[in-house]
Amino acid sequence: MAEFREKEETEEPARLLDPERLSFTRDDPEWEDHLRALLARSDDSELKSFVSDLYTSDIAHFFEKLSFEESDRLFKLLDPEEQGLLLLELDDNIKERFLDHLSHEELATIVGEQQSDTAADILGELDDEQRGRILSRLDPDDRFEVSELLGYPEGTAGSIMAREFVSVLETDTVKKAIANVRRISRETDDIYNVFVVDKAGRYRGHISLRRLILTRPSTRVKKIMEEELLPLPATMDVEEVANSFTRYDFITAPVVDERGVLIGRITADDILEVMQDEASEDFLRMGGVSAEETLKTPVWRAAAVRVLWLTINLATAFLAASIVRFFEDTIEKVVILAALMPIVAGMGGNAASQTMAFTIRNLALGEISKQGSRRVVFREMGIGLINGLSLGIFAGLLVFMLTHHVILSGLISFALFGNMLIAAAIGSSVPILLQKWNIDPAIGSSIFVTTCTDMGGFFFLLGMARLLLPFLLSGIQ
Amino acid sequence: MAEFREKEETEEPARLLDPERLSFTRDDPEWEDHLRALLARSDDSELKSFVSDLYTSDIAHFFEKLSFEESDRLFKLLDPEEQGLLLLELDDNIKERFLDHLSHEELATIVGEQQSDTAADILGELDDEQRGRILSRLDPDDRFEVSELLGYPEGTAGSIMAREFVSVLETDTVKKAIANVRRISRETDDIYNVFVVDKAGRYRGHISLRRLILTRPSTRVKKIMEEELLPLPATMDVEEVANSFTRYDFITAPVVDERGVLIGRITADDILEVMQDEASEDFLRMGGVSAEETLKTPVWRAAAVRVLWLTINLATAFLAASIVRFFEDTIEKVVILAALMPIVAGMGGNAASQTMAFTIRNLALGEISKQGSRRVVFREMGIGLINGLSLGIFAGLLVFMLTHHVILSGLISFALFGNMLIAAAIGSSVPILLQKWNIDPAIGSSIFVTTCTDMGGFFFLLGMARLLLPFLLSGIQ
Repeated sequence: MAEFREKEETEEPARLLDPERLSFTRDDPEWEDHLRALLARSDDSELKSFVSDLYTSDIAHFFEKLSFEESDRLFKLLDPEEQGLLLLELDDNIKERFLDHLSHEELATIVGEQQSDTAADILGELDDEQRGRILSRLDPDDRFEVSELLGYPEGTAGSIMAREFVSVLETDTVKKAIANVRRISRETDDIYNVFVVDKAGRYRGHISLRRLILTRPSTRVKKIMEEELLPLPATMDVEEVANSFTRYDFITAPVVDERGVLIGRITADDILEVMQDEASEDFLRMGGVSAEETLKTPVWRAAAVRVLWLTINLATAFLAASIVRFFEDTIEKVVILAALMPIVAGMGGNAASQTMAFTIRNLALGEISKQGSRRVVFREMGIGLINGLSLGIFAGLLVFMLTHHVILSGLISFALFGNMLIAAAIGSSVPILLQKWNIDPAIGSSIFVTTCTDMGGFFFLLGMARLLLPFLLSGIQ
Repeated sequence: MAEFREKEETEEPARLLDPERLSFTRDDPEWEDHLRALLARSDDSELKSFVSDLYTSDIAHFFEKLSFEESDRLFKLLDPEEQGLLLLELDDNIKERFLDHLSHEELATIVGEQQSDTAADILGELDDEQRGRILSRLDPDDRFEVSELLGYPEGTAGSIMAREFVSVLETDTVKKAIANVRRISRETDDIYNVFVVDKAGRYRGHISLRRLILTRPSTRVKKIMEEELLPLPATMDVEEVANSFTRYDFITAPVVDERGVLIGRITADDILEVMQDEASEDFLRMGGVSAEETLKTPVWRAAAVRVLWLTINLATAFLAASIVRFFEDTIEKVVILAALMPIVAGMGGNAASQTMAFTIRNLALGEISKQGSRRVVFREMGIGLINGLSLGIFAGLLVFMLTHHVILSGLISFALFGNMLIAAAIGSSVPILLQKWNIDPAIGSSIFVTTCTDMGGFFFLLGMARLLLPFLLSGIQ
């Protein structure tokens, strides 16, 4: 007992036991101080044991706080496999510096030690010339595997799968399967399943490692394999892959080519990353921010990217304003319209953003099938009808209370109602159409839709006001 | 070869090999037709083999298309474990119908067959009285485990963990570890790791099943265990748990209590669900939609929930309009202000939505630490300054081209610039403050922020216009 205690106190400080600090481990200044103290020593041995205990992602985090020379010293203490994983975790500018700094020789060693998907990811960071040079230094098997992975378009199952998997024939025994696990183990850590294929290499089923452990070695795999695991086509969109993982609780899934031949596998931890990226992308794009912007993007560069979106918005805002200008004479006579105008436009925008958020998210989750998209538009129009009516009446009542003007109140009721119907129709159909045309609905919908609701709001209110001008004027002091 | 062919054609139709259809399997009308044909027969045997080959999530999908009687007939063909998983996948109204329909006896059998986390989830769907009755029918061990899980507040690691895990002492052998895997296998399918604990039950490290398979049975686990896996405190927020999984590529993670004692584990497939839910929640809430709304929510109910948010927006829109009313005399004299007004307000809103999206997403990803939040606000103000300047000048030029009026152009430049600074300051600090006060930033930020940018836009433009009125009038025809 005393022996365990001691170990705890010396090797692992409060990390494991203090829940408050646990979650912020890497932001804890104590850790950084400790690292700097070790860096101050000329002897690397303790430094090495310190970094080798850290997660790759945390080392990358520290690199942002250290000078390049310090980072490089740490980098050299890692083995090539860890170096490769680390490269992918680094911030873009630090990563580029390392990629420039490392010789082709060193890079080839690093790439050669990786699992195929990581190797492809690292090579994907290089320019064509560098990539060619590194590829030529890899051993032929690795080169073939990695080149193939690089051939899959970004955003497909093929582009995120790993080529390392364990497979056996249906007629093989458990013993053979375990021997295969042993062989592949040299190349990869994350094996959770053995896949079963037919003689043509086509995916037939799978066996969990747990099952392998518990079954007599002489048993034929066909007897214990499970068949329900859906293989994913290599061309499948990663968003759909992620939806399959969530829907069917996969930990690992086989990837097949168009003939059904098993060519790779995807693991849930890859999908977690895909999902987080996709969610960030949609969320940021919906707000008009590039998915590439991080807290480390320099201010001027973030501004330059964001200003593009704002400029388009400015153009559409002037477009909407031109409708107002067209009705300036009406506003001049009934100036309260200037105050009501943004209400109608804004409420249309709000209703549209509800409809858009709902539609875009359900498109992303694969909940809206091709046949079902018309129903979604009708559903939204139904909601728009109900809420347009209730809010239209409510806003009319408010205006009546403020102005005691019946026609004006009726006017805002009508304009709000009309604009909310437009919001529902456009807000649901635009994302669906964009998706159909393979444009990310999160990126294009909001500009188009809010321009419509702005213009719609101004037009309904002011156009109707012009028609009813004599009545409006008669009631206004 | 011929033998495999045959099997393929009869048992598994095009499902495996047609990538186009693979991804839409469950929406394929052929499947539904097949199911209905089987339901038409009085004999259940083929029906049973058909549903037992389906994923739970797909059965739930079919239930939405069938009558309750048909669904119930299918339900009865499943074993209790599958029935429990299915209940959790069902749409709310169908689920409620089944929960009412099943006897306590049946429910207790279903719950008793589940892994602890699923059991707790099912019990979480019941009211207190029903839950008590079912709990009292469970065997004491199960009752204890499940009650404990039910005790963790929603949204914590404890509430999503499972109590089933394999653990061994540091001094145990690989053989013992495998024996423990065998024992736990009766309770759960998803075992990917064996956890190592000290004599007090505190988490010390882990061993992958792969490693167990490849190591001689007499080896002590201490020799082969890995120590780097971070245990998660049971009180940790699930969003943070998800971030740890993504950051550190976990497939499974140990959960510990405040003393570091291992009490459960979380698997990546649970996290996929959490992540998808959190992402949906943020995305929908940002758009003003409840995270609970699905395509199956009845129109009137969706409308009723959405109208709440719209009503708050209507109130704030009237608030902003009151500023316009205050300056009605100015607008009456310079009516073009009515057209420029929504431009300034809208551009502030667009800039704010960029800032908010960026801030809220980075808060959700845990990228903004407590110390770093001030820097984020400064960064956004920097971007706001640059883009406010450039867009302000640009908008001024546009207005000059349209009106040839210098003062008016200067006015819009100034107002746009000021409003974009407000957008940056409010758009970044409001989400950070809400997060600090434990209010979901995605839900509250946008209303508050856009009200500010609307009011700011109107106030800057119209207030300044009133001050400069003589100059404005002198230049306008």
